[in-house]
This record gives sequence, C-alpha cells and structure tokens, in this order.
Amino acid sequence: MSSLFLRTLRDDPSDASVPSHKLLVRAGYIRPIAAGIFSWLPLGVIVLRNVERVIREEMDRAGFQEVHFPALLPKDPYEKTARWDEYGPALFRLKDRKGSDYLLGPTHEEMFTLMVKGEYSSYKDLPLSIYQIQTKYRDEARPRSGIIRGREFVMKDSYSFDLDDAGLEVSYNKHRDAYISTFDRLGLAYNIVSAMSGAMGGSKSEEFLAPCPTGEDTYVLCKSCGYAANVEAMVTKIEKKAIDTPPAIEVLDTPNTPTIETLVEVMNKKYNAGITAADTLKNVLLVADGEPICVLVPGDREVDLKRLEANLQGVKELRLFDDEDFAKRKEFVKGYVGPQDAKRFGIKLYADPRITVGSHWITGANTPNRHARYVTHGRDFQVDGFVEAAEVRAGDSCPKCDTPVVIDRAIEIGHIFQLGRKYAEALELTVLDGEGKSRVVTMGSYGIGVSRAVAAIAEQTHDEIGLVWPKEIAPAMVHIVATGKEDLPFTTAEKIALDLESKGVTVMLDDRKEASPGVKFKDAELIGNPVIVIVGKALAEGKVELRIRSVGTKSEVPLANVTSEVLAALK
Amino acid sequence: MSSLFLRTLRDDPSDASVPSHKLLVRAGYIRPIAAGIFSWLPLGVIVLRNVERVIREEMDRAGFQEVHFPALLPKDPYEKTARWDEYGPALFRLKDRKGSDYLLGPTHEEMFTLMVKGEYSSYKDLPLSIYQIQTKYRDEARPRSGIIRGREFVMKDSYSFDLDDAGLEVSYNKHRDAYISTFDRLGLAYNIVSAMSGAMGGSKSEEFLAPCPTGEDTYVLCKSCGYAANVEAMVTKIEKKAIDTPPAIEVLDTPNTPTIETLVEVMNKKYNAGITAADTLKNVLLVADGEPICVLVPGDREVDLKRLEANLQGVKELRLFDDEDFAKRKEFVKGYVGPQDAKRFGIKLYADPRITVGSHWITGANTPNRHARYVTHGRDFQVDGFVEAAEVRAGDSCPKCDTPVVIDRAIEIGHIFQLGRKYAEALELTVLDGEGKSRVVTMGSYGIGVSRAVAAIAEQTHDEIGLVWPKEIAPAMVHIVATGKEDLPFTTAEKIALDLESKGVTVMLDDRKEASPGVKFKDAELIGNPVIVIVGKALAEGKVELRIRSVGTKSEVPLANVTSEVLAALK
Repeated sequence: MSSLFLRTLRDDPSDASVPSHKLLVRAGYIRPIAAGIFSWLPLGVIVLRNVERVIREEMDRAGFQEVHFPALLPKDPYEKTARWDEYGPALFRLKDRKGSDYLLGPTHEEMFTLMVKGEYSSYKDLPLSIYQIQTKYRDEARPRSGIIRGREFVMKDSYSFDLDDAGLEVSYNKHRDAYISTFDRLGLAYNIVSAMSGAMGGSKSEEFLAPCPTGEDTYVLCKSCGYAANVEAMVTKIEKKAIDTPPAIEVLDTPNTPTIETLVEVMNKKYNAGITAADTLKNVLLVADGEPICVLVPGDREVDLKRLEANLQGVKELRLFDDEDFAKRKEFVKGYVGPQDAKRFGIKLYADPRITVGSHWITGANTPNRHARYVTHGRDFQVDGFVEAAEVRAGDSCPKCDTPVVIDRAIEIGHIFQLGRKYAEALELTVLDGEGKSRVVTMGSYGIGVSRAVAAIAEQTHDEIGLVWPKEIAPAMVHIVATGKEDLPFTTAEKIALDLESKGVTVMLDDRKEASPGVKFKDAELIGNPVIVIVGKALAEGKVELRIRSVGTKSEVPLANVTSEVLAALK
Repeated sequence: MSSLFLRTLRDDPSDASVPSHKLLVRAGYIRPIAAGIFSWLPLGVIVLRNVERVIREEMDRAGFQEVHFPALLPKDPYEKTARWDEYGPALFRLKDRKGSDYLLGPTHEEMFTLMVKGEYSSYKDLPLSIYQIQTKYRDEARPRSGIIRGREFVMKDSYSFDLDDAGLEVSYNKHRDAYISTFDRLGLAYNIVSAMSGAMGGSKSEEFLAPCPTGEDTYVLCKSCGYAANVEAMVTKIEKKAIDTPPAIEVLDTPNTPTIETLVEVMNKKYNAGITAADTLKNVLLVADGEPICVLVPGDREVDLKRLEANLQGVKELRLFDDEDFAKRKEFVKGYVGPQDAKRFGIKLYADPRITVGSHWITGANTPNRHARYVTHGRDFQVDGFVEAAEVRAGDSCPKCDTPVVIDRAIEIGHIFQLGRKYAEALELTVLDGEGKSRVVTMGSYGIGVSRAVAAIAEQTHDEIGLVWPKEIAPAMVHIVATGKEDLPFTTAEKIALDLESKGVTVMLDDRKEASPGVKFKDAELIGNPVIVIVGKALAEGKVELRIRSVGTKSEVPLANVTSEVLAALK
C-alpha cells in the first residue's frame, strides 16, 4: 500500500447513483473518462482479470475454443445482415482515411459466421463452439450506473455452430451449464429467466439475471415453483371460467365517458351491478410499420409497449396513435372505439390472451358518447391473433403453478440464444451433410458481460462500509494492516505476508507509516478483501486480530496460528 | 487436432510478402479482416497471450503497476497537447450520437498524465511507473507486412513519473532493464539503438530493433564495438585533418556546370588535381516552416530529409526548394549557389559536421556559370549551426571506434523515451516538492509492440518449412503425432500426452484418424511447436520418434524414456 497507485476517496462521486459505481470509484478501482467510458486503476485491473480468468477457465473446460476479433470492423458484413442500419444511433460508425465505412463492434455474430465459413465446409467439422473476451462498443442513449451500462465494455461472446436444431439444443445446454458453473464461481446469486430474443431474431432464449434492488431489468419470479421470466416473456395464465351465452349486443348512451374510469362509473350508476374495469375492453390503437393495428386488453390493464413489441413477430417500428392519426382516420372515435367494426375499418386486431373466445365485454360502439355491452369474442368480433401485450403485475398467477408471482429487479449478467439460421443464411454459411447436400448451419449466441459482472458482484456483496469481494475475485485474499510507530508490527506483518504467499494466498500489505490506524482500517473495509489481519496493539501479547469482512467478525488469534486460521477462513 | 478449430493452408496468401505474414496465415494463426486488421484463431490467441504473459510478468517484476484505459477517447486532452491535429490522417476520429468528437487511442500519453494528475499531488508519491496492455489504433497510410504494421494492434505502453531528470534517468534505466529481460525471454535477437525522439518531443530515446531481412527499419551497426543507432540518430565521425591556411577566394568561370558531376569534371580538366566530389560543397535550399534555409553537405553526399527533419529542432514542416521558390528568390542561382553571401541574402545556414571550421571548398559563386574555390568556413562564411543531415552509408566510420559500420534492416519491437515535461506542462501535472513548491512532473514513455512481437519472433525463428517457436511462446511445448490405422498408437500417444501434462508440459495431440502421416508431419512442422513426438511405425519396436523442430534432428527413443527425453530437449 505504500507504493500502490491508489487514492481512496472519502466522498461518493456526485454523478453516481448505484452502490457499485460509488464504491468502485471511492475505493480506487475505476475512474470516469467520458459518459459510459471508464479507466481501470490497478485494483480494478486485478478484479477484472480475475473475472476474465474464471470465465475463460469455464469456457475452456466446456471445450469452447478462444479466438479474437478486431473491434474495428468493416461495414460490409453488417450491411449483409442489415444490422448496419438496424442498430441505429447505438452503433459507433467511422470512416478511415480512404473514406471506407467502419464500425466499432457491438457484438460479433457476423464476424464469427464468416470465420467459420472461411475454415469449415463439412458436417464432420461440427459441432463447434468458439468464443472471445473482447472490448465492445455501443453508443447507449443513456449510459448509466457506472460500468453496468457503459459505452465501452468487456464482453465474453460465444457462438455455436451445428448441423441442425437438435445439435443446437445440445450446444445451447452445454453453454447453459458452463454459465451456471461460471456464475457460481463468481459468487453471484442469479435466476435463469425465459426471455424473448428481440432484435437478435432467434427462437429460444434465456437470461441470467442477478437480483439487485438497483438493477435495470425487471422480471417475474414465482417463489413457489421457481418459474422466472423477463417481463416481455411472461406467459399469461388464463383462468378458465364457465362461459354462459351472452345476450345480443346492446348499444348504450354513455355521454362523456372517454375513459375506462368514467365508463365504469356510468355503468355502475346505470346497472348497479358491481362492474369493474376488468369487465371492460380497452382498444389500444397503434401504428405498426406504418399500418394501424388495434390491441385489446382488459380495461384494468395497460398495454406494455416493450412487451407488445417483443411479442409482435416481425414488426420493426411500433408507436401509439397520435392526434394526427385520429384526424386521418375519422372512423376511430377516440374514447369510444370497439372491436366490432374492425373488418369494416380494415384494421388488424390482436388480443391479450385474457380476451378468450366466448368472453363478452363492455366496449366502445364506434360512435361518439356511446358504448356497447355483451360484445362477444368469436360472435361479434374475430381477432387476427393473440399477443402478450398487457402489463404484468405482482400478484399475477404463475403460469406453471398458479401462485401469485413477485416482480423483482436484477442486472442482466448473461444471455443465451438459439439464434437459428438468420446469420448463416444472410452470410451463406453452409456445410455439406452426410449425403453431400448443402445445409445452412444452425447457430447459437451466448454472452456474458465481463466488466458488468464486476459491478454485479459489487452490487450483491457490498455493505454500508465498502466492497466485499468473494475470494476468487478479490484484489487479494488477505489484507494485512500493520499499525503503530515501532518497526516490529511492520516486520511481523511482512513475515505473515511471505508465509501466506508461500501457501498460495494472495496478500495486500498496508505498510504505510504515515497513515493512522483508523485510516488503514477504513481503507481495508472499503477495498473489500475477504480476510483482514491487523498486526498492532495485540502483538504485545503475541496476538493479531482477524476480521472476516463478509460477516464482520473480529477475533484475536495467537501469532503462531495466524496462517492456519487465515487458511481456514478462506475455505 | 481432431477438434481444434484449425485449417492449415497449402499455399501462401497472395497478398502476403513477408514470411511471418505467409506462415501465420498458412498455419492458421491469423486471418485478414480488412487492410491492416486481423482476427486471431485459437493457435494465434495462445501465442499472443503467451507474449502478453511474459511482458506482464517482467513489468510486474520491475514494480510497474498495470492499469487499463479505454480505446475510445474524448478529443479534449488530445486537443490540449495539439496531437488531435498533429496526428493528421493517422488518427481514427469519430463522433458519438450527440456529435461529440472522439478518437481511437493511437498512444495514451495524455490519458496517463491526467490519471496521475487525478490521484497524486506530492513528491512523496513519486517515482511511479504504470503500464497497460491494450489495443491501439492507427490509420496507417500503408498497412503492410501482416501484423507487423497493422491498423489495430496490441501494445504494451508504460509511463514513468518523476520529480526531476535524475529520477527520470533511474526510471528510464529500470525500463531498459525490464525490456532486456522481456525480449530475452521472448527469444528475440535485438539491438538497442540510439534513436531520435521525433514527434514525441522528448530527449533521450532508444529503440529495440530485431534484425530481420524484411524489417522496415534501417539502422547503423558497428560489428566491432556494438554501437547501434537508427539512421536519424547516427553521429558523424569527424576525421581530424591538419588544416593549412587556404588562399583567398578565387572566382572561376565554369560554364555549364550546374551539377556536382559536371563541376568535378571541369575542375579536373582545369587543374588536373585529382579533385573529387568530396572536395565540393553542396548547397541544398529548403523551406522550413515557411522560411528558406540552406544546408551544406559534402558534394559526394545527398541530404537525407528524414535525418535532417529529425535533427532540426522545432521544425514542423520541411520541403526542398521548388522552381517557384527559385523564381521568387532570384539571388539563388540554381546550380551555382554558394554560402558566401548567406548573410546578405538573409538565409540561415546549417552545415553537416564534416564542414568543419577552417575547411575550404569548391562551391557556387552565386552567379550563373561561375564557381569559387578556397571558400573557407569561418573566414568566408559562418553557419547558424551544425546539423546531422547527410545520408549515412555502409562503411562510414563508427563514432565510437572508427570501424566501418554496416547498415542493417530490423523490426522495431520496443521504444523507450525520455519524454521530459511536454505532456505534464500541457496538461498541468504538477506535484509539491519538499519545500512546498509546485513542480512540473518529468515523464518517460515506453512501448512494446505486443502483436508485432509475435510476428518478429516468427520472422527470426521460422525456416523454409514453417514456424519454429521458442518454448515459452509456442502454442504447446510438444506436438505429438499418432499415425496408422490401429488404435495402439493413438492410445499410446494419449498416455504420453497425459504423462507430459502431469509434469507441466503443454501438449498438442494430433489424433486425427483420416489425415495421412504426411499431412500430419507437414502440419506439425508448419505449426512450429518446439518438440515433435511421432508415435507410429517404430512403436512395434517399443520406440517413438523425437524431432527437435529448431535444429531438425530426428532420433528414436524407447517408449519408457520419452518423457525424460522430451524434458531434456525442453531444457
């Protein structure tokens, strides 16, 4: 510590809102360079390298092979898959001195696909899984939470290549297992959550989410059966109700009821029948890739646009109707829309699964100041498809076991995708199969946020006084503090350090002579190595103090036992 | 090898001109992505990581501390030091989504200076040496020679921070020693060569050059005393001649003698005196930052513009007089310029050190078709300074021991600079000294081309059949080839592999069943692991074949001795 390039800070940085950001800056692990761009000080480099090492060891153990791509990439492959445009402003684009277009790789599907295309040509070469640990670039609109969402960050990305879907399933599960081993070793708590594959254009997909109150991702968790899904992927549980045949549609005068709230009030006044918002139908008009569509949800729920977008196959751009849209299409009466005339209006209808066939609803009558009741799905309107579009709420039923779910926050630390053939098709990656026929290769894509994992571990393990690293990740396993004005504690501390190092234990030694004991203890707690040994006052009685950072225990142990006690504490 | 992601190629890539480029592609270490941009296949990743590991270990051992900067950097610090502009088209520049200017770091002096400024403030904090191993970007006009001169490449860059020049000298020598250990461990032959610091703006500077016939750098080497300098830094050895007092200037009619060659011919006809070009004075007119200057060299030498530029302190732009310049300044008579009237013409004179004070010359008379002789330095003209400007030739005298030097080609693998206070001044990095006074910090800057070192090792160690790695760098220390149709050679090879691995030896096992022995031998030789063990025909007699790749020896050893023989060979 007397020569370590480190200055700890007493105060939280003013721009930091989450604990990992505050503590990693205060404890001298990282420093800001620009929005979402950080440098790593010596302690940060060690922790980052430790996380990389664990990931690399687990990938290698699974038989995945490491390769390395440039970050500066030519436009052409990304144009072939349309991602050059689709990425929008999140892609860092630049030109070289000759005016050719380049990008800074946000993810490397294209490059891996082309690499395998360049080397392999036969089904005998498959399966193959290759990975890299690499710096990636995304021009986030709102870089935030320190290194959790940065614009330059380290990722491990793997890709699997198989002859068919069955092979992909095997490769996918190998990656899933390797991720489990990795995150277990990193000391992270996590849930494996069903996810939509979104812009990646694949099929099956799961996220590894590290629960954490400051996490950006919300997800649904069933504490009874363990079902977990991100909000986009949550499946609505349909309660089977006995369906009575409703009377014919009845159109009602409902002046000044443009909202669900006013409608419910008026209906209850009229019929005194305990009608709730859940008995009404909300008709949400949107524009999907230029075409108007209508999404039906029960009146007590909002449409969750992210959820709708993830579930509407093939739609690239989605937005709510605005005043201009209503002005153009006079047939849609704002506040009084109903699904009955969808065919006539030439608009596609999508329904939340709760709008079951046979169910009937109070809804707009497509006339100002009028609503209709007994509007029945299957009789009075047909839908073009069901879609998971309604907001998910805590207390909704678990689709597996019916228990009310909770909604939790987390950091996404890993993501595994069954990509399928999208990239292989676009870039013509084929192999000859056993019969000599050309087959498009089936791919999977698997990511771990390496620098983000550092923050996630910090988020989950810190306490109010500082960082608390698991031993495999910590800058050192043991932090030895020598105090006092005499030489003896310092020479004793050095002897303990050498003895521990000879047993394979990594050590940080606070040998600063000018710093007070209080400053040294505070720094040790802030830095967060798992075991702290204090060589000070108790030395007069032949003892040193042992503190276990994660549980906060302090005990005095005889000098002769310190190595064995430290080794035991690290077990 | 049956599962390794590798395809070796029979033919050299058409765009490759140097052996390292050809062999690294053919043996499946690297693949081109764009001009000067490569990806690394599994064997390449291992070799690159091995080189990184050796460098990191030697830096750590010297007490330097590792940090890590982003590659994507904001413009501001590079504007403060003027390098945003000075780098010209070699800098990759880009804008983020908000339109702010960024660059891809070509080197990180600015960032390191600011990092230390952010943490440290007292002389007690110094000395400090910090480093990073990082991907760097330079938009080279002519990326070439594969990974020797790429546009994205890996570098180790260190920076030292000291209170004064004496401290810098110590830090500089520590780096010099660490570089010697590093390159020795990497198995590289190299010369430490005096260099000019050029655009970096410092003082003392040395290059580590790895001799190699395809190298881009030329340098001067004295095979007798070991003196080595790059051409820019070569110091002219002045032969001390007895100086007789020459007669007064004599102006001569020399019609049609605008060149040294014609002048020498005419003079010899006139005086029959064995006059050579070395007796004449060449007056080279140039424009330096807009001002005309004249450089004097002996008539038998050309001006080396790179050398002149490196040695003319503070000059940013330098070019030869063109016809337009001569047209503007009629006093300079092309082919008949002499130094006698420099004062009158208002032009600065610089002289090669060979133009000693007291020496006299045949030179132009500043009149068409006239020359002058006995024009004497110190009597007839004065110079504003001496400058190393004349071309260097093989056979020139070593400035240390007078032996004729050779001119050799090499790859620059490392560079150490005494930067001084340029960056610290521009970015206001100061510390308080022992008396509480603010002092500008003195810096050094030290680089190793990491990916380039891979190529340099390949250049120096390869032979006509493939790569030949030193054991610390090779993908594996031992390459075991099993041949034949039976299972026995394969199971035996596997046993040998496991036994060697248990002794800490890394192994590549060629367990391919379809490939012929010839293909396997060729691949083993091409890939270049230092020891090859062949488990094949000789197995019938209880023997295996041992080949030492670097010397090409083959011997049969009893199966029982294979581990000990391999270990002996690796010693």
